[in-house]
Amino acid sequence: VILEHVVLDVFPGTQDEYEAAFDEARRIVAGMPGFRSLRLERCLEVPTRYLLLIEWDTLEDHTVGFRGSEEYQRWRELTHRFYDPFPTVEHYRTVLTAGS
Amino acid sequence: VILEHVVLDVFPGTQDEYEAAFDEARRIVAGMPGFRSLRLERCLEVPTRYLLLIEWDTLEDHTVGFRGSEEYQRWRELTHRFYDPFPTVEHYRTVLTAGS
Repeated sequence: VILEHVVLDVFPGTQDEYEAAFDEARRIVAGMPGFRSLRLERCLEVPTRYLLLIEWDTLEDHTVGFRGSEEYQRWRELTHRFYDPFPTVEHYRTVLTAGS
Repeated sequence: VILEHVVLDVFPGTQDEYEAAFDEARRIVAGMPGFRSLRLERCLEVPTRYLLLIEWDTLEDHTVGFRGSEEYQRWRELTHRFYDPFPTVEHYRTVLTAGS
């Protein structure tokens, strides 16, 4: 399992609109091959900041499958105009866990 | 539930030692009041980078309970010497989810 990790800063005042757009966008990614789970989180300290965590079966399910898909174009249309600056995507693999 | 989020950059070449220290450190935090779960993840793109995600019942379980505890001193001794630069901790609350 690969964890896609993105810290997202949106333009001030667009949070409600962004969350509504993301509510639609999550349905797109949730139907893609290799998709496992998604969490969009909002920062307590920085009110324009979000954290997106998506679990994929493999790295390529995200970087090749999703990014190369027609569905990705719709994802971009829905979400990318909110970001300032444009975010950096990284991928992680679990080393250690504890608890549930 | 509150998600503690920290991106951790360690000194190059110390990854194995850091992961061994963290294996001990996770037992400390896992016993604290309000602790729910922990994940330490390693970045695929940046080999000195880790992501720490800890779920707490409340913000204060982390910021007051854990940071004010004797256990936190031991946590610091085990982990803080690896970080370059010293990391920024943020807290998040879930907005949307999809999948498992």
